[in-house]
Amino acid sequence: MDRVPFQATVAGALYEGIRTLPAAVLLDNVRSMYNVGSFFRTADAASVEKLYRCGSTARPPKKAIAKTALGAEDTVSWEHAWDALPLVEAIRARGYEIAAVETSVHAVDLFDWQPRFPVCVVFGHEVDGIRPEISALCDTHVRIPMLGTKHSLNVATAGGVVIYELLRKYRALGVP
Amino acid sequence: MDRVPFQATVAGALYEGIRTLPAAVLLDNVRSMYNVGSFFRTADAASVEKLYRCGSTARPPKKAIAKTALGAEDTVSWEHAWDALPLVEAIRARGYEIAAVETSVHAVDLFDWQPRFPVCVVFGHEVDGIRPEISALCDTHVRIPMLGTKHSLNVATAGGVVIYELLRKYRALGVP
Repeated sequence: MDRVPFQATVAGALYEGIRTLPAAVLLDNVRSMYNVGSFFRTADAASVEKLYRCGSTARPPKKAIAKTALGAEDTVSWEHAWDALPLVEAIRARGYEIAAVETSVHAVDLFDWQPRFPVCVVFGHEVDGIRPEISALCDTHVRIPMLGTKHSLNVATAGGVVIYELLRKYRALGVP
Repeated sequence: MDRVPFQATVAGALYEGIRTLPAAVLLDNVRSMYNVGSFFRTADAASVEKLYRCGSTARPPKKAIAKTALGAEDTVSWEHAWDALPLVEAIRARGYEIAAVETSVHAVDLFDWQPRFPVCVVFGHEVDGIRPEISALCDTHVRIPMLGTKHSLNVATAGGVVIYELLRKYRALGVP
Protein backbone atom coordinates (compact mmCIF):
# COMPACT_ATOMS: atom_id res chain seq x y z
CA MET A 1 0.00 0.00 0.00
CA ASP A 2 1.59 3.24 -1.12
CA ARG A 3 0.23 5.88 1.17
CA VAL A 4 1.34 9.46 1.29
CA PRO A 5 -0.30 10.86 4.40
CA PHE A 6 -0.97 14.53 4.67
CA GLN A 7 -1.99 16.08 7.98
CA ALA A 8 -4.07 19.23 7.92
CA THR A 9 -3.17 21.81 10.50
CA VAL A 10 -5.96 24.36 10.26
CA ALA A 11 -8.91 24.13 12.62
CA GLY A 12 -12.42 25.20 11.59
CA ALA A 13 -15.55 26.29 13.42
CA LEU A 14 -17.51 24.44 16.10
CA TYR A 15 -21.03 23.53 14.90
CA GLU A 16 -23.68 22.49 17.42
CA GLY A 17 -20.90 21.08 19.56
CA ILE A 18 -19.38 19.21 16.60
CA ARG A 19 -15.71 19.89 15.82
CA THR A 20 -15.21 17.01 13.38
CA LEU A 21 -17.70 14.76 11.60
CA PRO A 22 -16.64 11.20 12.41
CA ALA A 23 -16.60 10.28 8.74
CA ALA A 24 -14.04 9.64 6.04
CA VAL A 25 -14.46 9.86 2.28
CA LEU A 26 -12.81 7.36 -0.08
CA LEU A 27 -12.53 8.19 -3.78
CA ASP A 28 -11.52 5.26 -6.01
CA ASN A 29 -10.45 6.19 -9.54
CA VAL A 30 -12.38 9.47 -9.64
CA ARG A 31 -11.33 10.77 -13.04
CA SER A 32 -12.03 14.49 -13.05
CA MET A 33 -9.72 16.80 -11.14
CA TYR A 34 -12.60 19.28 -10.83
CA ASN A 35 -14.58 16.61 -9.01
CA VAL A 36 -11.61 15.80 -6.75
CA GLY A 37 -11.25 19.51 -5.97
CA SER A 38 -14.94 19.82 -5.15
CA PHE A 39 -14.67 16.84 -2.79
CA PHE A 40 -11.81 18.59 -0.97
CA ARG A 41 -13.93 21.72 -0.61
CA THR A 42 -16.94 19.75 0.70
CA ALA A 43 -14.72 17.69 3.01
CA ASP A 44 -13.38 20.92 4.50
CA ALA A 45 -16.85 22.45 4.83
CA ALA A 46 -18.32 19.43 6.63
CA SER A 47 -15.08 18.82 8.58
CA VAL A 48 -14.68 15.16 7.64
CA GLU A 49 -11.74 13.38 9.25
CA LYS A 50 -9.92 12.31 6.12
CA LEU A 51 -10.11 12.07 2.35
CA TYR A 52 -8.67 8.87 0.88
CA ARG A 53 -7.53 9.15 -2.73
CA CYS A 54 -7.25 5.72 -4.28
CA GLY A 55 -5.97 4.41 -7.60
CA SER A 56 -5.86 7.03 -10.31
CA THR A 57 -7.69 9.72 -8.29
CA ALA A 58 -5.58 12.85 -8.84
CA ARG A 59 -3.20 14.15 -6.21
CA PRO A 60 -2.77 17.78 -5.15
CA PRO A 61 -1.12 20.08 -5.97
CA LYS A 62 -2.73 20.32 -9.41
CA LYS A 63 -4.07 23.45 -11.03
CA ALA A 64 -7.40 21.80 -11.95
CA ILE A 65 -7.89 20.51 -8.40
CA ALA A 66 -7.09 23.93 -6.93
CA LYS A 67 -9.65 25.52 -9.27
CA THR A 68 -12.54 23.85 -7.43
CA ALA A 69 -10.87 23.12 -4.06
CA LEU A 70 -9.97 26.81 -3.57
CA GLY A 71 -7.40 26.06 -0.90
CA ALA A 72 -9.24 23.20 0.82
CA GLU A 73 -6.60 20.82 -0.57
CA ASP A 74 -4.29 22.39 2.04
CA THR A 75 -6.66 22.08 4.99
CA VAL A 76 -8.16 18.61 4.56
CA SER A 77 -6.14 15.66 5.79
CA TRP A 78 -5.67 13.13 2.99
CA GLU A 79 -3.95 9.86 2.23
CA HIS A 80 -3.32 7.96 -0.99
CA ALA A 81 -3.42 4.23 -1.70
CA TRP A 82 -2.97 2.68 -5.13
CA ASP A 83 -5.16 -0.26 -4.19
CA ALA A 84 -8.32 0.59 -2.25
CA LEU A 85 -8.97 -3.02 -1.18
CA PRO A 86 -6.49 -3.41 1.70
CA LEU A 87 -7.21 0.18 2.73
CA VAL A 88 -10.93 -0.54 3.02
CA GLU A 89 -10.10 -3.61 5.14
CA ALA A 90 -7.84 -1.49 7.35
CA ILE A 91 -10.46 1.24 7.80
CA ARG A 92 -13.10 -1.32 8.69
CA ALA A 93 -10.72 -2.90 11.20
CA ARG A 94 -10.61 0.50 12.91
CA GLY A 95 -14.37 0.23 13.50
CA TYR A 96 -15.75 2.19 10.54
CA GLU A 97 -18.95 1.27 8.74
CA ILE A 98 -17.96 1.17 5.06
CA ALA A 99 -20.75 2.52 2.84
CA ALA A 100 -20.67 2.37 -0.95
CA VAL A 101 -22.63 5.14 -2.64
CA GLU A 102 -24.25 3.47 -5.64
CA THR A 103 -27.30 3.77 -7.84
CA SER A 104 -28.33 0.12 -7.32
CA VAL A 105 -32.01 -0.41 -6.50
CA HIS A 106 -30.90 -2.93 -3.86
CA ALA A 107 -29.15 -0.20 -1.92
CA VAL A 108 -30.76 1.46 1.11
CA ASP A 109 -32.31 4.87 0.54
CA LEU A 110 -29.99 7.63 1.84
CA PHE A 111 -32.79 9.12 3.96
CA ASP A 112 -33.65 5.73 5.51
CA TRP A 113 -30.04 4.77 6.18
CA GLN A 114 -29.07 4.72 9.85
CA PRO A 115 -25.29 4.91 9.80
CA ARG A 116 -23.19 3.59 12.66
CA PHE A 117 -20.49 6.22 13.18
CA PRO A 118 -17.63 6.40 12.39
CA VAL A 119 -18.47 5.94 8.72
CA CYS A 120 -16.39 5.80 5.56
CA VAL A 121 -18.32 6.62 2.38
CA VAL A 122 -16.96 5.27 -0.90
CA PHE A 123 -17.36 6.90 -4.32
CA GLY A 124 -16.16 5.42 -7.61
CA HIS A 125 -15.40 6.33 -11.19
CA GLU A 126 -17.72 8.86 -12.88
CA VAL A 127 -18.88 6.41 -15.55
CA ASP A 128 -18.03 2.93 -14.29
CA GLY A 129 -18.97 3.51 -10.64
CA ILE A 130 -17.43 1.56 -7.77
CA ARG A 131 -15.43 -1.52 -8.78
CA PRO A 132 -17.31 -4.77 -7.96
CA GLU A 133 -14.49 -6.06 -5.73
CA ILE A 134 -14.68 -2.87 -3.62
CA SER A 135 -18.47 -2.88 -3.59
CA ALA A 136 -18.44 -6.49 -2.34
CA LEU A 137 -16.30 -5.41 0.63
CA CYS A 138 -18.69 -2.69 1.77
CA ASP A 139 -20.98 -3.13 4.78
CA THR A 140 -23.75 -0.98 3.34
CA HIS A 141 -24.87 0.19 -0.09
CA VAL A 142 -26.54 3.57 -0.11
CA ARG A 143 -28.45 5.18 -2.95
CA ILE A 144 -29.55 8.74 -3.46
CA PRO A 145 -33.22 8.82 -4.53
CA MET A 146 -33.58 9.41 -8.27
CA LEU A 147 -36.93 10.81 -9.40
CA GLY A 148 -35.90 11.92 -12.86
CA THR A 149 -35.16 10.38 -16.21
CA LYS A 150 -31.40 10.16 -15.64
CA HIS A 151 -30.16 7.77 -13.01
CA SER A 152 -27.25 9.45 -11.33
CA LEU A 153 -25.88 12.76 -10.11
CA ASN A 154 -22.51 14.29 -10.79
CA VAL A 155 -20.19 12.45 -8.37
CA ALA A 156 -19.11 15.65 -6.57
CA THR A 157 -22.75 16.72 -6.17
CA ALA A 158 -23.56 13.23 -4.85
CA GLY A 159 -20.67 13.70 -2.43
CA GLY A 160 -22.18 16.92 -1.12
CA VAL A 161 -25.62 15.33 -0.71
CA VAL A 162 -24.29 12.28 1.17
CA ILE A 163 -21.72 14.08 3.33
CA TYR A 164 -24.23 16.73 4.47
CA GLU A 165 -26.89 14.10 5.15
CA LEU A 166 -24.30 12.37 7.35
CA LEU A 167 -23.71 15.67 9.17
CA ARG A 168 -27.48 16.12 9.64
CA LYS A 169 -27.85 12.58 10.99
CA TYR A 170 -24.84 12.96 13.30
CA ARG A 171 -26.12 16.26 14.63
CA ALA A 172 -29.54 14.65 15.24
CA LEU A 173 -27.87 12.06 17.51
CA GLY A 174 -26.93 14.93 19.82
CA VAL A 175 -23.65 13.15 20.58
CA PRO A 176 -21.28 15.94 21.65
CA MET B 1 -38.90 40.27 -18.98
CA ASP B 2 -37.38 38.21 -21.76
CA ARG B 3 -38.41 34.67 -21.07
CA VAL B 4 -37.83 31.70 -23.29
CA PRO B 5 -39.89 28.93 -21.76
CA PHE B 6 -38.94 25.35 -22.37
CA GLN B 7 -41.32 22.55 -21.42
CA ALA B 8 -39.86 19.18 -20.59
CA THR B 9 -41.79 16.19 -21.86
CA VAL B 10 -40.10 13.24 -20.23
CA ALA B 11 -41.57 11.80 -17.02
CA GLY B 12 -39.42 10.20 -14.33
CA ALA B 13 -39.96 7.74 -11.49
CA LEU B 14 -42.41 7.97 -8.60
CA TYR B 15 -40.63 8.20 -5.23
CA GLU B 16 -42.54 7.55 -2.01
CA GLY B 17 -45.64 8.84 -3.74
CA ILE B 18 -43.83 11.95 -5.00
CA ARG B 19 -43.89 12.61 -8.72
CA THR B 20 -42.58 16.18 -8.59
CA LEU B 21 -40.89 18.11 -5.82
CA PRO B 22 -42.90 21.35 -5.41
CA ALA B 23 -39.77 23.44 -5.76
CA ALA B 24 -38.13 25.63 -8.34
CA VAL B 25 -34.49 26.64 -8.64
CA LEU B 26 -33.43 30.13 -9.69
CA LEU B 27 -29.85 30.77 -10.85
CA ASP B 28 -28.85 34.42 -11.14
CA ASN B 29 -25.62 35.10 -13.04
CA VAL B 30 -24.12 31.68 -12.39
CA ARG B 31 -20.90 31.96 -14.36
CA SER B 32 -19.70 28.44 -14.99
CA MET B 33 -21.44 26.34 -17.61
CA TYR B 34 -20.28 23.21 -15.77
CA ASN B 35 -22.17 24.44 -12.72
CA VAL B 36 -25.26 25.20 -14.80
CA GLY B 37 -25.07 21.70 -16.30
CA SER B 38 -24.75 20.13 -12.85
CA PHE B 39 -27.83 22.06 -11.69
CA PHE B 40 -29.78 20.64 -14.64
CA ARG B 41 -28.71 17.14 -13.70
CA THR B 42 -29.64 17.63 -10.03
CA ALA B 43 -32.95 19.29 -10.99
CA ASP B 44 -33.80 16.24 -13.09
CA ALA B 45 -32.75 13.80 -10.36
CA ALA B 46 -34.86 15.48 -7.67
CA SER B 47 -37.68 16.25 -10.12
CA VAL B 48 -37.93 19.96 -9.42
CA GLU B 49 -40.68 21.81 -11.25
CA LYS B 50 -38.57 24.35 -13.05
CA LEU B 51 -35.10 25.81 -13.42
CA TYR B 52 -35.00 29.59 -13.89
CA ARG B 53 -31.89 30.90 -15.63
CA CYS B 54 -31.47 34.60 -14.97
CA GLY B 55 -29.09 37.26 -16.23
CA SER B 56 -25.90 35.87 -17.68
CA THR B 57 -26.54 32.27 -16.60
CA ALA B 58 -25.74 30.23 -19.70
CA ARG B 59 -28.44 28.80 -21.93
CA PRO B 60 -28.56 25.28 -23.41
CA PRO B 61 -27.60 23.95 -25.85
CA LYS B 62 -23.94 24.47 -25.01
CA LYS B 63 -21.22 21.86 -25.11
CA ALA B 64 -19.92 22.76 -21.63
CA ILE B 65 -23.44 22.55 -20.15
CA ALA B 66 -24.06 19.19 -21.81
CA LYS B 67 -20.78 17.86 -20.38
CA THR B 68 -22.18 17.95 -16.84
CA ALA B 69 -25.94 17.91 -17.58
CA LEU B 70 -25.61 14.66 -19.57
CA GLY B 71 -28.98 15.11 -21.28
CA ALA B 72 -30.85 16.59 -18.31
CA GLU B 73 -30.92 19.93 -20.16
CA ASP B 74 -33.51 18.24 -22.41
CA THR B 75 -35.71 16.87 -19.63
CA VAL B 76 -35.87 19.73 -17.12
CA SER B 77 -38.35 22.51 -17.77
CA TRP B 78 -36.58 25.88 -17.79
CA GLU B 79 -37.23 29.54 -18.37
CA HIS B 80 -34.96 32.55 -18.82
CA ALA B 81 -35.28 36.11 -17.57
CA TRP B 82 -32.66 38.83 -18.03
CA ASP B 83 -33.74 40.52 -14.82
CA ALA B 84 -34.46 38.23 -11.88
CA LEU B 85 -36.26 40.92 -9.86
CA PRO B 86 -39.71 40.94 -11.53
CA LEU B 87 -39.46 37.17 -11.94
CA VAL B 88 -38.93 36.69 -8.21
CA GLU B 89 -41.97 38.93 -7.57
CA ALA B 90 -44.04 36.88 -10.02
CA ILE B 91 -43.01 33.56 -8.47
CA ARG B 92 -43.83 34.84 -4.98
CA ALA B 93 -47.21 36.04 -6.23
CA ARG B 94 -47.89 32.44 -7.23
CA GLY B 95 -47.50 31.43 -3.56
CA TYR B 96 -43.88 30.33 -3.45
CA GLU B 97 -41.61 30.90 -0.48
CA ILE B 98 -38.49 32.51 -1.95
CA ALA B 99 -35.33 31.31 -0.21
CA ALA B 100 -31.89 32.77 -0.84
CA VAL B 101 -29.05 30.32 -0.26
CA GLU B 102 -26.30 32.40 1.31
CA THR B 103 -23.36 32.08 3.66
CA SER B 104 -24.56 34.89 5.96
CA VAL B 105 -24.49 34.08 9.67
CA HIS B 106 -27.91 35.74 9.97
CA ALA B 107 -29.45 33.10 7.73
CA VAL B 108 -31.37 30.12 9.13
CA ASP B 109 -29.49 26.83 9.29
CA LEU B 110 -30.54 24.55 6.41
CA PHE B 111 -31.35 21.71 8.82
CA ASP B 112 -33.49 23.96 11.05
CA TRP B 113 -35.34 25.59 8.14
CA GLN B 114 -38.99 24.63 7.87
CA PRO B 115 -39.91 25.52 4.30
CA ARG B 116 -43.47 26.29 3.28
CA PHE B 117 -43.95 24.47 -0.02
CA PRO B 118 -43.93 25.36 -2.86
CA VAL B 119 -40.44 26.81 -2.53
CA CYS B 120 -38.11 28.62 -4.92
CA VAL B 121 -34.44 28.44 -3.94
CA VAL B 122 -32.14 31.16 -5.27
CA PHE B 123 -28.42 30.77 -6.01
CA GLY B 124 -26.11 33.56 -7.16
CA HIS B 125 -22.75 34.18 -8.75
CA GLU B 126 -19.88 31.87 -7.74
CA VAL B 127 -17.77 34.67 -6.29
CA ASP B 128 -20.12 37.59 -5.67
CA GLY B 129 -23.08 35.54 -4.40
CA ILE B 130 -26.68 36.75 -4.67
CA ARG B 131 -27.13 40.40 -5.63
CA PRO B 132 -28.26 42.52 -2.63
CA GLU B 133 -31.43 43.68 -4.42
CA ILE B 134 -32.45 40.04 -5.01
CA SER B 135 -31.47 39.01 -1.50
CA ALA B 136 -33.63 41.82 -0.08
CA LEU B 137 -36.64 40.42 -1.94
CA CYS B 138 -36.33 36.91 -0.49
CA ASP B 139 -38.61 35.65 2.29
CA THR B 140 -35.96 33.46 3.86
CA HIS B 141 -32.17 33.29 3.93
CA VAL B 142 -30.78 29.81 4.32
CA ARG B 143 -27.20 28.82 5.05
CA ILE B 144 -25.47 25.50 4.76
CA PRO B 145 -23.49 24.78 7.94
CA MET B 146 -19.76 25.42 7.44
CA LEU B 147 -17.45 23.66 9.88
CA GLY B 148 -14.22 24.12 7.97
CA THR B 149 -11.73 26.86 7.27
CA LYS B 150 -13.32 27.90 3.98
CA HIS B 151 -16.74 29.49 4.09
CA SER B 152 -18.61 28.20 1.09
CA LEU B 153 -19.20 25.20 -1.12
CA ASN B 154 -19.05 24.96 -4.88
CA VAL B 155 -22.41 26.41 -5.98
CA ALA B 156 -23.49 23.22 -7.78
CA THR B 157 -22.60 21.13 -4.74
CA ALA B 158 -24.55 23.58 -2.57
CA GLY B 159 -27.44 23.11 -5.00
CA GLY B 160 -27.37 19.34 -4.51
CA VAL B 161 -27.25 19.70 -0.72
CA VAL B 162 -30.17 22.16 -0.57
CA ILE B 163 -32.37 20.50 -3.20
CA TYR B 164 -32.01 17.05 -1.64
CA GLU B 165 -32.66 18.44 1.85
CA LEU B 166 -35.86 19.93 0.42
CA LEU B 167 -36.79 16.51 -0.96
CA ARG B 168 -36.11 14.91 2.43
CA LYS B 169 -38.22 17.53 4.22
CA TYR B 170 -41.05 17.20 1.70
CA ARG B 171 -41.06 13.42 1.96
CA ALA B 172 -41.14 13.72 5.77
CA LEU B 173 -44.37 15.72 5.49
CA GLY B 174 -45.99 12.62 4.02
CA VAL B 175 -48.03 14.86 1.73
CA PRO B 176 -48.85 12.62 -1.25
